[in-house]
Amino acid sequence: MNKIKHPKRIKNIRNYLSEKKLDGIIISNEENRFYFSGLRSSAGFLFITMNDLYLFTDFRYTELASSEAPGWNIQKITSRLGWLPEIIKKLRVSNVGFESEFITVNTFNLIKDTINSSDVEVTLIPTTDIVLTLRAVKDEEEIKLITKAIEIGDKAFEYTEKNIEIGMTEKEVAWIFEKSVREQNAESISFDTIVASGKNAARPHHATGDSKIEANSTIIIDCGAKYNGYCSDLTRTIVIGDAEEKIKNIYDIVHMAQLSAIDLVKVGMTGEECDSIARKIISEAGYGDFFGHSLGHGIGLDVHENPNVGPRSKYIIQNNMPFTVEPGIYLQGWGGVRIEDIVIIIDNKTQVISKAKKINL
Amino acid sequence: MNKIKHPKRIKNIRNYLSEKKLDGIIISNEENRFYFSGLRSSAGFLFITMNDLYLFTDFRYTELASSEAPGWNIQKITSRLGWLPEIIKKLRVSNVGFESEFITVNTFNLIKDTINSSDVEVTLIPTTDIVLTLRAVKDEEEIKLITKAIEIGDKAFEYTEKNIEIGMTEKEVAWIFEKSVREQNAESISFDTIVASGKNAARPHHATGDSKIEANSTIIIDCGAKYNGYCSDLTRTIVIGDAEEKIKNIYDIVHMAQLSAIDLVKVGMTGEECDSIARKIISEAGYGDFFGHSLGHGIGLDVHENPNVGPRSKYIIQNNMPFTVEPGIYLQGWGGVRIEDIVIIIDNKTQVISKAKKINL
Repeated sequence: MNKIKHPKRIKNIRNYLSEKKLDGIIISNEENRFYFSGLRSSAGFLFITMNDLYLFTDFRYTELASSEAPGWNIQKITSRLGWLPEIIKKLRVSNVGFESEFITVNTFNLIKDTINSSDVEVTLIPTTDIVLTLRAVKDEEEIKLITKAIEIGDKAFEYTEKNIEIGMTEKEVAWIFEKSVREQNAESISFDTIVASGKNAARPHHATGDSKIEANSTIIIDCGAKYNGYCSDLTRTIVIGDAEEKIKNIYDIVHMAQLSAIDLVKVGMTGEECDSIARKIISEAGYGDFFGHSLGHGIGLDVHENPNVGPRSKYIIQNNMPFTVEPGIYLQGWGGVRIEDIVIIIDNKTQVISKAKKINL
Repeated sequence: MNKIKHPKRIKNIRNYLSEKKLDGIIISNEENRFYFSGLRSSAGFLFITMNDLYLFTDFRYTELASSEAPGWNIQKITSRLGWLPEIIKKLRVSNVGFESEFITVNTFNLIKDTINSSDVEVTLIPTTDIVLTLRAVKDEEEIKLITKAIEIGDKAFEYTEKNIEIGMTEKEVAWIFEKSVREQNAESISFDTIVASGKNAARPHHATGDSKIEANSTIIIDCGAKYNGYCSDLTRTIVIGDAEEKIKNIYDIVHMAQLSAIDLVKVGMTGEECDSIARKIISEAGYGDFFGHSLGHGIGLDVHENPNVGPRSKYIIQNNMPFTVEPGIYLQGWGGVRIEDIVIIIDNKTQVISKAKKINL
């Protein structure tokens, strides 16, 4: 048997199985299947028990699976769910977990019908947030991949900033970023690039459109790259032309809030506590009502994942858990400022992974 | 009240409600929400009853919703599912359908908890394939948008064919196609472009990679564009250099199978009957075992949707139901040929919408 790619990750999920007295778990989410097996595929299931690792996939991926998922028992799916009672019978398992946030009601009904019309008996137990919780803490390989995705995103942002011109549409600017990402051999952008100029910058989730880039107002660019499955996420606010005093003032408040949060976040704090560092500075400057989103979020195979770093988040920050720090101030009818970097605490020391330069106003 | 964008579509879903004695239906799928309301958004729900049209979405989309979804009662979601018992109470509905293939077990459990801890009583009824069935037959506006997506895809393919060179990687060729699509103002490609050269062409679902484009062998390019939500899908097989007799021979068989199917498909046939036209020709030429996928599939907001046009499909072909016709022959260790166009039958006359030219071998 070949060595599996991620023994630590398998150990973690087996610890969970043992803790919850489960004989096995069905993993259906695409990123989670990749996380454990090493195979990227658009369809399939993993079946993990204390002693066995089964990977079920269709004819498109069986060949690739042998090279990408060494150590897994690879089985070709020939009927949609027929493999399930077979493996349950073969491995004699009776309590099996499944990812309830990724299995639809319809699929679950089909699973129940398939089991009921077979000769096996099994209890299917809904789980939530199991793998997402494991995924929040990254291993060395993951940190390398995230760092690489960030480098690509940083470089593409700096290329975009150099080439942005007044009168271009927001979409054209987003396309400059995306081309640069792709030409650096990243697989894709990690989310739809936000380019918000002038009054549009007042909307944190502005849909990049045909508005033209304006002079002398803030332009928010929120962008990321995806490399080998891992995401980056970066926001910079820039101004082409002259920044009026109000822009400089608000930019400084947001920047100070960001630097303070980066300086003061610590292992053991809750998401809420981290968030409150930046929120306090913005509130004391009189803009508390205009910072209407969380300070940040974890990042990895998904661009938004655990931990949530916002008001009401009880999630505990740990070592090796990269997350974004992205305070903002948004004023309807005027514009907005957001500054975002990705940080990680390793051996209790906070590092800023993002390196894209910030403007001097 | 402003006029809604798609009264016919609303009439169809209300006919379904009345037939099934449902008081209302929750629409959660992203494409389906767009299909009925006209608003494209990454989150939200529609609640459709015989008399009311409610659109629930979050703060990011409420402003856009007023312009994009005229005639809908737009409500901002403030807590994840709190809106549901409220609307059930307000509209006094007791039998409510939901899309069981798009609601996860976890969300459904949260819905049940939310209902149970409120003072309303309601029966939630799982439905499947309702909107997807309605969507198979397209209206005039949809046919226009699909035609436009196909034009963009055709043009991008022809540009790619002009610029492809021996020694380029498959990924580089795919990127030429994608850039051309995006520079024509399409929103994106409609699926990951397949470029399969040499022996890779023997795999119908080859994952485009770093293999180099080879001379004198078949190159399959399967590609599509997305325009205003609607997809195109096109496959051409090309050869750079000299095509040996075997290539010419197999190309002719696939091409004849395709033209015959296009010529003979009729309203009222099942998917299976359409498929068998092409399959018979390929089988009689001795390659029946090497055409391992369906003849085609419907296309619209999703690149694969109803009708299925393959062996065992009882789906009845109707007017205004665009679908692909894409026979192929794949020989392990040698390569493959696939040719794909999108056809539509309007007033009982078959039209080929795809116009990208085919090669002369």
